[in-house]
Amino acid sequence: MRPGELAQRLRAVLPTDAVLDDRDLVQAYRHDEAQQVAGGTPAAVALPRSTEDVVAALRISHELGVPVVPRGAGTGLSGGAAAVDGCLVVCTTRMAQITEINVAEQYAVVQPGVITADLDAAAAAVGLWYPPDPSSWRDCTIGGNVATDAGGLCCVRYGTTSDHVLGLEVVLADGRVLRTGRRTAKGVAGYDLTRLVVGSEGTLGVITSAVLRLRPRRPAPATVIAVFPTLTAAGGAVLALVGAGLTICLLEIMDRTTIRAVEDLGQMGLDTDAAAVLVVQTERPDDSEDVQRLCLSQDAGEVHATADAAESELLLQARRLALPALQSKGSVLLDDVAVPRSALPALIEAVERVAHETGLTIGTFGHAGDGNLHPTIVFDRADPAQRAAAQVGFDGVVAAALELGGTITGEHGVGRLKVDWLTRELDDVALQVSRDVKAALDPRGLMNPGAVLGA
Amino acid sequence: MRPGELAQRLRAVLPTDAVLDDRDLVQAYRHDEAQQVAGGTPAAVALPRSTEDVVAALRISHELGVPVVPRGAGTGLSGGAAAVDGCLVVCTTRMAQITEINVAEQYAVVQPGVITADLDAAAAAVGLWYPPDPSSWRDCTIGGNVATDAGGLCCVRYGTTSDHVLGLEVVLADGRVLRTGRRTAKGVAGYDLTRLVVGSEGTLGVITSAVLRLRPRRPAPATVIAVFPTLTAAGGAVLALVGAGLTICLLEIMDRTTIRAVEDLGQMGLDTDAAAVLVVQTERPDDSEDVQRLCLSQDAGEVHATADAAESELLLQARRLALPALQSKGSVLLDDVAVPRSALPALIEAVERVAHETGLTIGTFGHAGDGNLHPTIVFDRADPAQRAAAQVGFDGVVAAALELGGTITGEHGVGRLKVDWLTRELDDVALQVSRDVKAALDPRGLMNPGAVLGA
Repeated sequence: MRPGELAQRLRAVLPTDAVLDDRDLVQAYRHDEAQQVAGGTPAAVALPRSTEDVVAALRISHELGVPVVPRGAGTGLSGGAAAVDGCLVVCTTRMAQITEINVAEQYAVVQPGVITADLDAAAAAVGLWYPPDPSSWRDCTIGGNVATDAGGLCCVRYGTTSDHVLGLEVVLADGRVLRTGRRTAKGVAGYDLTRLVVGSEGTLGVITSAVLRLRPRRPAPATVIAVFPTLTAAGGAVLALVGAGLTICLLEIMDRTTIRAVEDLGQMGLDTDAAAVLVVQTERPDDSEDVQRLCLSQDAGEVHATADAAESELLLQARRLALPALQSKGSVLLDDVAVPRSALPALIEAVERVAHETGLTIGTFGHAGDGNLHPTIVFDRADPAQRAAAQVGFDGVVAAALELGGTITGEHGVGRLKVDWLTRELDDVALQVSRDVKAALDPRGLMNPGAVLGA
Repeated sequence: MRPGELAQRLRAVLPTDAVLDDRDLVQAYRHDEAQQVAGGTPAAVALPRSTEDVVAALRISHELGVPVVPRGAGTGLSGGAAAVDGCLVVCTTRMAQITEINVAEQYAVVQPGVITADLDAAAAAVGLWYPPDPSSWRDCTIGGNVATDAGGLCCVRYGTTSDHVLGLEVVLADGRVLRTGRRTAKGVAGYDLTRLVVGSEGTLGVITSAVLRLRPRRPAPATVIAVFPTLTAAGGAVLALVGAGLTICLLEIMDRTTIRAVEDLGQMGLDTDAAAVLVVQTERPDDSEDVQRLCLSQDAGEVHATADAAESELLLQARRLALPALQSKGSVLLDDVAVPRSALPALIEAVERVAHETGLTIGTFGHAGDGNLHPTIVFDRADPAQRAAAQVGFDGVVAAALELGGTITGEHGVGRLKVDWLTRELDDVALQVSRDVKAALDPRGLMNPGAVLGA
């Protein structure tokens, strides 16, 4: 392929403003929010508005043998949307139409560039709710959510993005349009190709439409915040809460390092001697009393509770400040692992050992109800020794999770960041079958090469 | 392969009582409960007790090029477990160990031959619950449930079998052991091979172990039974109930034909002039009042309600009698389709037209909350004309569901019964991708040939 050929071919089939190849302009599409993955320089960026645009673009990239990196808003944290040199980036942010909201059947049909919060707002306007709530929900797009099977705070009760995807439209590497799934509540006709694409991080095709399950809107939940003197006590409370069969729709944890950072930033009046804080929400107000009782029975010190929506949001604010508070201390590397819930105290202790060994601050917070934590390494990016230590710490956290029977990624995905780790989580047969499935959909290996399964 | 070679080779690696090839004995493994699928004669039947047994058997069948048909209890209703001539049937009913129940993490690890009701009983002994409840739950096995993504009554709130599978062990056609998934609540490492295998009806491998999500046991639900003068009214009630955000955990419908059959058999005091009856269960007693109010607002005639567990079971009995009542009228063909919930009245009317055109009785009942109905054709098997009419009726029901934007199978699977129909539900790209995925896992096409994707 001669220089400029890809962009020239694309301009023949797409509107002029839908193709970028200016060397400066394409730099903005090199990477996502995973700062460890620098990314390459795309040969061109396509900004399609329709499935037809994506088909036209992928027919050309397929013919030219050019790799394709799909991306949405670029809020991903594992480098799954990082470009490779000479690739075509297909950025779906202009495909931002909500095609349909079906109130009776409780689903939405959306283009991939719809921002998650916008979908929820549109659903709210007709009394419905789109539960998945990744922290970036005001910026991230549905296409990226589906591609990574994004999680969030309410997963503990409502599941992740994958639990809300009824069907997909996907443009394959050769430009064919694959339609999966259904619009009915149930259905078992053929293989579950929908779930195969969900979480495949752009390595099987470009998602161009999604049918997403909505739910009736719920009343504002009640909130409890409980402070624990030891990790063991907090861990015991998590298990007791999950085992009690209550309507818990949020169950978050912050460790001491995070509590102190939050207190430094927000002066919320948290006990900075506590080992951990749990923030718990329930959908039935009377469940809130059970939550308080169970926390106290597990040696909680202070417990605050409210059924008031505004006050709830204030208590939740402590948890929402966790990442900004750690970021205020320096550069951060945000990790993402999940372990069996009973291993939460052991994971936090292992993280503390990693912090001690690397000499860095690591604050741990996350979705305790799912065993999904985000140990967050604070370091000085200007210092090469600290940069190296941060990477050692990052890997140490992932290793600890695997040793505890956990997974290398709870909700952020493998991307390009954890490709080597995937070969430690999956055995040879699972890796080979994954590669064979990939080859079945993308025999020339053009879709997001290097992500998930490596080169 | 010379006659007897398969059984002889199998006997060299499996216990003697684990291999059947007596011509009379293997006849019992020709078919499942789908009476339209006669099935072929297996060359041998293997009755493994362990994953190692399955591996040993499949290495031999692979080497000999013998097709493999996996089966559990044989309660399937779409011929997915029907044998093909000369095949090896791998019957997993002796693999009936519950390997582990982890109370803290709320999961069970089970062999595929565990009976669904036995798993739930074991879970109940430690305060947990395995929700999926196909009607055959006292006889069917987990392996078959996973292979078909079996549904049931409580799907409307808790989802189907697939929503409860965290991970699988699967022996592939060539004897390799594929391990998928995880034991943590969340995790997104690599492709979702678990969901690819769930619902694949034995065409990708033999399931030898499953990690299944359990839930805290719930209190006995409250029950409402409501009688409607018209299908439109009943359909309106279904939409109102689903849209209300209540704790509805069962939402079943019976049409007039079914009501009359149930009344003939059970003398429950149902109104035989009613167009439809809804049976609704809720987990919160106060939701039961909302259910009654919503039903009455949609022109329900009589409404009965109870929060008493024994009385609830009695009301539910009317629904449980639906199939036996229709069976008492003759031979039956049980169909399984799902449509958008708003199309339920239209589907029942279409079924009535099919009944009129074929001159046969067709009673419709099923899972209204999921839009999943089982129109059940009553006919005289001894009469060739009625047998032919029954098949016409069966196909007419499936065609009607597709025309209404539905699916050819809501929960029973494609099996061998609906292979031709699958080519009408899926487009060419989806069929080709499905075949390519099948070929990636089973390149020689040995696993359950003819099922789902056809020859």
